[in-house]
Amino acid sequence: MEPKTQFHREILEQPQALSRLLREGRKNVEEVASKIRQFSPEWVLIAARGSSDNAARYAQYLLGVHNRLGVALAVPSLFTLYGTPPSMKRALVIGISQSGQSPDIVSVLEEARKQGGATIAVTNDADSPLARASEHTIPLLAGEERAVAATKTYTTELMALAMLSAALEGEPSRWAELEAVPDAVSGAIALNTDLEAHAKRFLGTQKLVVIGRGFNYSSAFETALKIKETSYLVAEPYSVADLLHGPVAMIDAGFPVIVVAPSGKGFADVPALLDLLEKREAKIVAISDNQDVLKRASTPLALPPGIPEWLSPIAAIVPGQLWAYALASAAGHNPDAPRGLSKVTMTR
Amino acid sequence: MEPKTQFHREILEQPQALSRLLREGRKNVEEVASKIRQFSPEWVLIAARGSSDNAARYAQYLLGVHNRLGVALAVPSLFTLYGTPPSMKRALVIGISQSGQSPDIVSVLEEARKQGGATIAVTNDADSPLARASEHTIPLLAGEERAVAATKTYTTELMALAMLSAALEGEPSRWAELEAVPDAVSGAIALNTDLEAHAKRFLGTQKLVVIGRGFNYSSAFETALKIKETSYLVAEPYSVADLLHGPVAMIDAGFPVIVVAPSGKGFADVPALLDLLEKREAKIVAISDNQDVLKRASTPLALPPGIPEWLSPIAAIVPGQLWAYALASAAGHNPDAPRGLSKVTMTR
Repeated sequence: MEPKTQFHREILEQPQALSRLLREGRKNVEEVASKIRQFSPEWVLIAARGSSDNAARYAQYLLGVHNRLGVALAVPSLFTLYGTPPSMKRALVIGISQSGQSPDIVSVLEEARKQGGATIAVTNDADSPLARASEHTIPLLAGEERAVAATKTYTTELMALAMLSAALEGEPSRWAELEAVPDAVSGAIALNTDLEAHAKRFLGTQKLVVIGRGFNYSSAFETALKIKETSYLVAEPYSVADLLHGPVAMIDAGFPVIVVAPSGKGFADVPALLDLLEKREAKIVAISDNQDVLKRASTPLALPPGIPEWLSPIAAIVPGQLWAYALASAAGHNPDAPRGLSKVTMTR
Repeated sequence: MEPKTQFHREILEQPQALSRLLREGRKNVEEVASKIRQFSPEWVLIAARGSSDNAARYAQYLLGVHNRLGVALAVPSLFTLYGTPPSMKRALVIGISQSGQSPDIVSVLEEARKQGGATIAVTNDADSPLARASEHTIPLLAGEERAVAATKTYTTELMALAMLSAALEGEPSRWAELEAVPDAVSGAIALNTDLEAHAKRFLGTQKLVVIGRGFNYSSAFETALKIKETSYLVAEPYSVADLLHGPVAMIDAGFPVIVVAPSGKGFADVPALLDLLEKREAKIVAISDNQDVLKRASTPLALPPGIPEWLSPIAAIVPGQLWAYALASAAGHNPDAPRGLSKVTMTR
């Protein structure tokens, strides 16, 4: 597959970027983890925006399930707008930002370090203000990302967090699972070429929802964000539970619903969800390694089999990225230059 | 104003419900707060769904700004789906649910109490499973809520949290501010009668966004949820920062944007936001006590002046509720019986 835009090129670069991070980043991550284990945090606070905030959502499940840590997503305006940062003395505070430039994220890490909390920057620029503000840094090593919509920095952020969790846990079998991720991502790319004919059937779509659960709640948010950034559609992410608590009311015949449903415990509700969506005659796009689910979708986006659930978001976002790319291409948009967006947003 | 539906009746009942909670609930809240101060939590975890989750968003700012507590929103599936609850020994864990029935919320509180964390149920049913699972209970005293879309239980949840924050802080001046809330809510009702003519100009609208910041980030979420629940529109909430990090791309001429902008520190970005929205020729609905902002909106939804920012979400949601009601009425929907929703959702 010959890449046609920066966005597309960077989607295709992901297997190499993930391999590089695993190979060159592991020693540093193990050293950082050993310091964090000594600190023994009571809870975790993560500061992030945009795609990096979706990586933080992944960390809520990852650090919860594998490390038994409660994770709060930081409210940067407590620091910048109200000037009343919370007490973070016993917290592990992680800032995630590809550029490491956002002043509001930097200010969370600066304050946390001042209070004596443990601080880690996860960033693609090891020399950025975020990295300088933090005691520890995990560089993404992803190479420069040129497209405004993040792809390879998102999946390497997930990988960096997964490596940190594995190192904190100290369970060697996790690393063998991590080593298999780049091939799984290659597989997800290979299974989702030529989506444009499918995407043409969505021309005229104005709104859609994306559903994911558990580890892949993050994938629902990130898939929705990629589509919003490149196709200007209203794409709203939900967990199954949140959908049933309200927004289910807006799903009627022909309403497009993207279901992110890799195998695992988070898959439990999927068959009942598909029953509901079929009853309402929704137009189903499924991202899954489960053949029954793929058969029930009018647009099946396949994942390779065998990815453990905790790592599935790194592969499951790839069909979402390619689907966003196909929707943008079918509509004649240039995904490299989204209307009204810039690569670094200096939110204060 | 003669109420026409249960939903409308319960919107109008809010000043009385808030007065009752202030009057009859204060002593209990002060006793609970005194126990929590002795426990001295390192962080706060809140478990909630739907409208109650929006009350939890309010608590993130409230407990952050006034009590310097970091607040995480619980991930119930860590407990129910993955069976791996985080460590909550040093946490204050609050469950918010009008019915007190949701098994996933109850399971968070049960586990927290078992681990030795401090637990509080905020619920309209003091005899519910949630109340029984928790060491402390703050009953909302709102009377039965019959409409499926929550209104008076939402504002009394905010009030219960505001009373708890004031009692934890031990600052007597907060109570005088709390006492003024029921009148402010009456004022917000009186300023927003006869919205239906305005709402008719939105017939045919399929999607809109709602923007709020700081304390009123919660108001953006809850306004969007009320509209989704009663009018089946795609209504997506954003902070100004999150909007600029992506979704701004979808706003073009005639795109409806609801701006929740009461006076206060969270108001800082609003003039620049309105400049941007005017440049893109968005259709602006403004909820504000600021006359300039109201003048710049094609649909001005006024708030009475003088509400302190930390309590403004209790009043600022009221025009949002009335606007949701007007949109539903204009479109001929019955807001008492939203399609596909039930009052108690037994999410596991």
